[in-house]
Amino acid sequence: MSNDKRLRLALFGSGRIGQVHARNIAAHPNIDLVLIADPFIDGARRLAESTGARAVQDPEEVFADTSLDGVIIGSPTSTHVDLISRSVARGLAVLCEKPIDLDIDTVLACREQIKDSTVPIMLGFNRRFDPSFAAVRARVEAGEIGKLEQLTITSRDPEPAPRDYIAGSGGIFRDMTIHDLDMARSFIPNIVEVSAVASNVFSKDIEELNDFDSAVVTLRGSEGELITITNSRHCAFGYDQRLEAFGPDGMLSAANVAPTTVRKSGAKGTEEADAYYPFFLERYPQAYYAELDAFAHSIRSGATTSPSFADGVSALILANAAAESAVTGKTVSVVEL
Amino acid sequence: MSNDKRLRLALFGSGRIGQVHARNIAAHPNIDLVLIADPFIDGARRLAESTGARAVQDPEEVFADTSLDGVIIGSPTSTHVDLISRSVARGLAVLCEKPIDLDIDTVLACREQIKDSTVPIMLGFNRRFDPSFAAVRARVEAGEIGKLEQLTITSRDPEPAPRDYIAGSGGIFRDMTIHDLDMARSFIPNIVEVSAVASNVFSKDIEELNDFDSAVVTLRGSEGELITITNSRHCAFGYDQRLEAFGPDGMLSAANVAPTTVRKSGAKGTEEADAYYPFFLERYPQAYYAELDAFAHSIRSGATTSPSFADGVSALILANAAAESAVTGKTVSVVEL
Amino acid sequence: MSNDKRLRLALFGSGRIGQVHARNIAAHPNIDLVLIADPFIDGARRLAESTGARAVQDPEEVFADTSLDGVIIGSPTSTHVDLISRSVARGLAVLCEKPIDLDIDTVLACREQIKDSTVPIMLGFNRRFDPSFAAVRARVEAGEIGKLEQLTITSRDPEPAPRDYIAGSGGIFRDMTIHDLDMARSFIPNIVEVSAVASNVFSKDIEELNDFDSAVVTLRGSEGELITITNSRHCAFGYDQRLEAFGPDGMLSAANVAPTTVRKSGAKGTEEADAYYPFFLERYPQAYYAELDAFAHSIRSGATTSPSFADGVSALILANAAAESAVTGKTVSVVEL
Amino acid sequence: MSNDKRLRLALFGSGRIGQVHARNIAAHPNIDLVLIADPFIDGARRLAESTGARAVQDPEEVFADTSLDGVIIGSPTSTHVDLISRSVARGLAVLCEKPIDLDIDTVLACREQIKDSTVPIMLGFNRRFDPSFAAVRARVEAGEIGKLEQLTITSRDPEPAPRDYIAGSGGIFRDMTIHDLDMARSFIPNIVEVSAVASNVFSKDIEELNDFDSAVVTLRGSEGELITITNSRHCAFGYDQRLEAFGPDGMLSAANVAPTTVRKSGAKGTEEADAYYPFFLERYPQAYYAELDAFAHSIRSGATTSPSFADGVSALILANAAAESAVTGKTVSVVEL
Repeated sequence: MSNDKRLRLALFGSGRIGQVHARNIAAHPNIDLVLIADPFIDGARRLAESTGARAVQDPEEVFADTSLDGVIIGSPTSTHVDLISRSVARGLAVLCEKPIDLDIDTVLACREQIKDSTVPIMLGFNRRFDPSFAAVRARVEAGEIGKLEQLTITSRDPEPAPRDYIAGSGGIFRDMTIHDLDMARSFIPNIVEVSAVASNVFSKDIEELNDFDSAVVTLRGSEGELITITNSRHCAFGYDQRLEAFGPDGMLSAANVAPTTVRKSGAKGTEEADAYYPFFLERYPQAYYAELDAFAHSIRSGATTSPSFADGVSALILANAAAESAVTGKTVSVVEL
Repeated sequence: MSNDKRLRLALFGSGRIGQVHARNIAAHPNIDLVLIADPFIDGARRLAESTGARAVQDPEEVFADTSLDGVIIGSPTSTHVDLISRSVARGLAVLCEKPIDLDIDTVLACREQIKDSTVPIMLGFNRRFDPSFAAVRARVEAGEIGKLEQLTITSRDPEPAPRDYIAGSGGIFRDMTIHDLDMARSFIPNIVEVSAVASNVFSKDIEELNDFDSAVVTLRGSEGELITITNSRHCAFGYDQRLEAFGPDGMLSAANVAPTTVRKSGAKGTEEADAYYPFFLERYPQAYYAELDAFAHSIRSGATTSPSFADGVSALILANAAAESAVTGKTVSVVEL
Repeated sequence: MSNDKRLRLALFGSGRIGQVHARNIAAHPNIDLVLIADPFIDGARRLAESTGARAVQDPEEVFADTSLDGVIIGSPTSTHVDLISRSVARGLAVLCEKPIDLDIDTVLACREQIKDSTVPIMLGFNRRFDPSFAAVRARVEAGEIGKLEQLTITSRDPEPAPRDYIAGSGGIFRDMTIHDLDMARSFIPNIVEVSAVASNVFSKDIEELNDFDSAVVTLRGSEGELITITNSRHCAFGYDQRLEAFGPDGMLSAANVAPTTVRKSGAKGTEEADAYYPFFLERYPQAYYAELDAFAHSIRSGATTSPSFADGVSALILANAAAESAVTGKTVSVVEL
Repeated sequence: MSNDKRLRLALFGSGRIGQVHARNIAAHPNIDLVLIADPFIDGARRLAESTGARAVQDPEEVFADTSLDGVIIGSPTSTHVDLISRSVARGLAVLCEKPIDLDIDTVLACREQIKDSTVPIMLGFNRRFDPSFAAVRARVEAGEIGKLEQLTITSRDPEPAPRDYIAGSGGIFRDMTIHDLDMARSFIPNIVEVSAVASNVFSKDIEELNDFDSAVVTLRGSEGELITITNSRHCAFGYDQRLEAFGPDGMLSAANVAPTTVRKSGAKGTEEADAYYPFFLERYPQAYYAELDAFAHSIRSGATTSPSFADGVSALILANAAAESAVTGKTVSVVEL
């Protein structure tokens, strides 16, 4: 495809994440948002008005539009597999929010269905595109610290999602840790073992739902690399998102991001920085934009997407292994990602 | 003016700074760039193509367009006063890049000419809009450190401008320090004394032009506040732009900005951050956008602009005083800003 | 015991750690080092000369000196249990370097033997006395971050000990991690589960000795607290010793220590700090001194020592559990510390 | 003099600074404190008891002791010149607290008197020995940032000294800035111009004494180097002591020192460090010890002392020039340091 032609995309879902994508497309110099599909047509209409797209209720209207290059799927998880399959069947490139589905069999069936397609299918693990995390990865790959030996990921949400959300989330590993598992795989794709320890230290709600509010997951890579993920469903100081990559020649770390560089020194303490960004919309705007740009690049160039559908499958397999390990107290071997 | 109506602006100048403004207007949700005027019509055309504006060669075409709300003046300094006067005469709001002019008499004549106008006239001291500097100022004004007593501004360019530019720049104080003088006045408007010490430590070129490559300026506010500005025309580690505000209850500081939060620890040293942004285009994109937004707000609301034409006059008076002090070795009193 | 009387101590061992203790006693205002016992009498003599003590070869000479208040045991691990038992039998207070012994049965037999004694017995987990770690612990105990939920300990040695040392060390968990296990217990004494994942990523020597060069240990406290320890036997940027304590109201962290506060900014990178201290002698001098002071305080006041003999037993039990978990891939329950 | 022989020193003055020196000598492995002379014999006795020295009232007892190698003068400023002269006349090495005297003529007369002596005379500008400042200087001298172009010194006391002390202090420049002037000269010995701006922003007491509570001093070195000193007589966040050295190849900075590396992140702000050390006794203990060690080295080796008597003279000349400039508003040329 020529680089000059403007890309034409449709968006499924006009909720919080749909709005992020719609605004990024509006700001992108050579992508047009043509359709926004949502059964809740009012939300789609409001978003369409401010972005110049057309709102539709029925996804079939998307599939009927032969002018489109691709779709972004930001609708509820339960719709992902169906929309992926139908989009791919029409030859539309897909950028789908994670997870593909909470059920691995459903995911694998979808994989079977689309296995012969050559359209780009990208999974929305947005954090891969964060400038700081991406810089650490690029510098590790460039050999700056030698062969990666240890990776330490800290990932804490500011506060638990509502009880209803948690109830249908698939649990902390499939809902929250899955992002960190993908981050781990973006450094060390070949994970062979998963150990997890989880607990309930603050939320009665989450405990009643048989879910955990806190977890530590340790992964082993095929060459002995050790990866640690520390999760909590709450964090008083904002969205805590950091990592450290350690190798024989040193360490590269990515810290939290604050709105300004201001520091305060006073009688009680010194060099106090801003509160960190509260959550992913504020923390990762550059990542969402870069993700969109990478998707556009894949459509134009036919290049392999990263993260791919297969990356989505792998992350879910690891999340399932972590969930099993947390319950059994045994390390789970992962034979084939 | 209603908040709903889209604003229509024209831009004078399609050079480096004109391009910044043109792109920000393109990204702004309710401002349209209608005309780009530049005697070098090719540059105007290229910029117009990518922003949807129309390129014109003759400024009269701007003044003839009765649909416009305002203009942004990003053309060479020598054209500023003329364009300001003519724009104001047509009732067009003005956002003019600094300086108004290098000659104070010309500036004061312009002031006389426009003194009865009520259209917003804003000076492009973009740094006032930097999020970190603005946050320090807001927190000082909120009383967080008590009454401001000392302000320390560090401002170093990455490398000297070309010899030709320096030759016509009006000298370090009028060209470079003037930004810091305005920053000082954004904290302490009422400056009563200026002392400057300047020297030539690295550039033969600048010395031959009877200009300085390094300077320290000390200002005194009307209530005894002491402000120090440290300037250099080069800086190995990028564009060095920092400040510290000190009062009886503590200190608020704004540090340099790096592209990522990555830190490297290795055998030679630890916690090494990125190189800072190289220069103003990379360092202050948010500031330019916020400046545009503030200009739009002034046009809509009729609110006083900040920085105003008068702020531009004051900064030039202080720059002249600094230049005088650097040569005479005497503190210069500033009677009326 | 009166606070005025000078304490009289003997030291077993004149090696590296014995020298640290001897010098600290020399610098302490009211402790005298009376005897230094070492079968390698030359080392004892050299150390005695510079500290004003008397060198002896036979430990019996220590036990025969009825003027002594206590002993510091800095001799090889294999001598610890015997020297503890004999010292305690003479009513001498004991500060013994860790570990008590590498064999838990030997340790428990020693515990049985001394169980009726009331003399202070202190274990040399020096890091408890590091000012930064101690400050975090004190602030956690003061409730500054609410109930402790997660503790993250990073602990990397600069480089592997010599092959011979490793061979007799008892393995990474009993030799190196044991310090971190005690640190964990200084925050959360009641540990109920241990999971460990370990690997060989860089050292053929260590692998040949059936030991690991890298490990991650996860502990669970009785109230669901999660503790993570990350270990490596090498570290390019020095002795990496950090921790983070996380609770509902925030996080307290202790970072590495550098010799100076100097930062370097240059063309390649900015704000580069010093290399960290190379190893424990340089990193923990204040901790060793504070440990000695706490020992003296226990002798004078009869106060319970911390860390105690029981803490030494607990740390070894946890190290053994970690070693088991690393091999079996199963979480090990710890019934009674 | 042999390196083996223990040095024998006497101390004049048993006040705050005398106590610092006495304790450092007690901790030093090969210096003995023999005599402590103070007309307030009770203070001398108390200090003598805890350090093993002998207290005397009459300085003549010091000069009569032929076993001494040198003296440390920590008595009131008014006694310095007399004690220096008499000590030097007896061939005793001298470490004298700053200033030599507040009156330049008295200082120059003393210089004349001792000009033929070869005994080491050292001035107590302790900050030269601070590890961070010394490291910056060493790295500048090693050429790490190229030829030094700008030096920025921040120096704020935690709170004003008592009114009586201020009244006899000689004013902010001779009492407080003099340390910073010496620090400047330790980087750039050859200062040729002094400009100062000073004000009264918070203390009525100091204003009534015709002194300033705040000041900025700018110095020019003989090769165009620009040095800025920012002073305040109060500081909410402790003793603020920092510097930045800037050259063509980068910047080296030394920051404030905190008791621990602990950082706190909470709902209101993040990464808050400890309050800095409150004042010089807490901030500069290593510097005082290193100063003593350097003095001992000079006595043993006959090496030139740094800072020397001449450095004390130069600092006072610069302080006088700053005081003059602050009043006249004119840059003061310094012909010969």
